[in-house]
Amino acid sequence: MSKKAVVLYSGGLDSATCMAIARTDGFDAYALSFAYGQRHSVELDKAREYAPRIGAADHRVVEIDLRQFGGSALTSDLGVPKDRTVHDDIPITYVPARNTIFLSFALGWAEVLEASDIYIGVNALDYSGYPDCRPEFISAFENMANLATRAGVEGDTPYTIHTPLIQLSKAEIIRTGLDLGVDYRLTHSCYDPTPKGIACGRCDSCLLRLKGFREAGVVDPIDYVTRGE
Amino acid sequence: MSKKAVVLYSGGLDSATCMAIARTDGFDAYALSFAYGQRHSVELDKAREYAPRIGAADHRVVEIDLRQFGGSALTSDLGVPKDRTVHDDIPITYVPARNTIFLSFALGWAEVLEASDIYIGVNALDYSGYPDCRPEFISAFENMANLATRAGVEGDTPYTIHTPLIQLSKAEIIRTGLDLGVDYRLTHSCYDPTPKGIACGRCDSCLLRLKGFREAGVVDPIDYVTRGE
Repeated sequence: MSKKAVVLYSGGLDSATCMAIARTDGFDAYALSFAYGQRHSVELDKAREYAPRIGAADHRVVEIDLRQFGGSALTSDLGVPKDRTVHDDIPITYVPARNTIFLSFALGWAEVLEASDIYIGVNALDYSGYPDCRPEFISAFENMANLATRAGVEGDTPYTIHTPLIQLSKAEIIRTGLDLGVDYRLTHSCYDPTPKGIACGRCDSCLLRLKGFREAGVVDPIDYVTRGE
Repeated sequence: MSKKAVVLYSGGLDSATCMAIARTDGFDAYALSFAYGQRHSVELDKAREYAPRIGAADHRVVEIDLRQFGGSALTSDLGVPKDRTVHDDIPITYVPARNTIFLSFALGWAEVLEASDIYIGVNALDYSGYPDCRPEFISAFENMANLATRAGVEGDTPYTIHTPLIQLSKAEIIRTGLDLGVDYRLTHSCYDPTPKGIACGRCDSCLLRLKGFREAGVVDPIDYVTRGE
C-alpha cells in the first residue's frame, strides 16, 4: 500500500510540479485546493479538471471566505498590479496568513487520512516577497504541527512539511517537472486571467512563469493574451 | 485610541470570559467565530446574538467546511459521547487541527486590522485531552505566526497569543468572569443542545461547566435538560 501525502494544489505550475515530486517520492497525492474568494476563480475550475489528469488520488476544494477580512488585491477590488519588476517588498497580492491557513487545513486532512506528509510548492527564490514562503516559516509550522495534533500526544510519526521547490529557480522547477512528465498545458498560473481563463501575460505570476520558461529554454505551452517581457 | 485584539469567540463560557479579560487588558475586542459544520450550530446563533451584548467591538463569522474531512463527532454523525468521565486520552469530539485553523484565521484578521494581539480561551487543566490546548502548542504557534507575516519581515510589533485561562480551573474561570461582570446567561457551552438551544447537561462540555459552577459555589444561570452529575 502506498503512503499518503496531502499536496497543496492551486492548479498552477509550482503545485503541479510538487505533486509529481510527491508521487515520485512514493506517495499517493491527496490534492487540496481552496476557494478563498480569489478574483481568479477560473483557477479552481482548471484545478478541478486537471487534478485527476496529473495524477491526484483524490482532490478536495475547501471553501473559505478570506474576502471578509480584505487586505489583499487577490481577494478584494484593489486591482492586480501589472508589468512590475519583482522586488523585495511585500506586494499587495500578499494574502494575510494565507499559507498558514492553507497548511492548517492540510494538517487537518492529513490527520484524518493518517498521512504524515504534506507537500507545498513554496519557493524562496522567486517568492515575490511573501513572508510565508520562507524556509524559517515552514520549519516553524512543522514544529507547531507536531504539537497541535495527536502525533504530539501519542508519539505517532511526526509530520513533515515537504518544500521540494523552495531553493529552485522557476527554470529549474520547469526542467524538474518536464523530467517527471508534467504536462504544463494542464497548469494555470495567472492572477488576472480573461473570463475564459486565458493568462494575461503581465501580472507578477505570468511574468515569473514566462521568465522561467525562457530561462529553461522551453516554450510555455499555454496561451497568453500577451507574452509580456 | 484603544488597541485592537482578535478574540476567538465560540459563544461559550470560556471565550466570553476571555473577551472580558481582553477588554480589561485595554483592548477593543474583535470577536471571531467559525461556522465549521459543527452539529451544534445553535451555538453560532447565540454567538451572533450575544457578541455585542458582552462587549465585542466587531464580530465576524467565518464559514469553513471541516465536515468534508470528517474525523470528529462534532463534525460528523459519529454521535456525541454522554455521561463519560473526563480522562486523558483524546476524545472523538477532538476536531483535527481545529485550533490551528482557528488561530490561523485570527492571525489573518489581526494582520488586516493591524492588531498584534490574539486571545484564545484554551485551558490546559480541564482541556479534555485536546493536544491543541497545551501551552507548548500555543508557544509554537506564536513563534510560527511571527515568521508567517509582515511582522516577521518588516520588524513590526510581534504577535502575542494570549491564553489567560490556560492554567485556571473551570471554577476559577467562572469566578474571574463574575468579577469582571460577565453575564453567564449570555453564554452557551453544550455540544449537543436541543433544537431550541437548551443544554443537554450530559456531554463533556456540560459536565465540565456544571462541575465548574458547583466548585465555584454558584448556580449556573442557564437552563439544562438535565443537570447530570
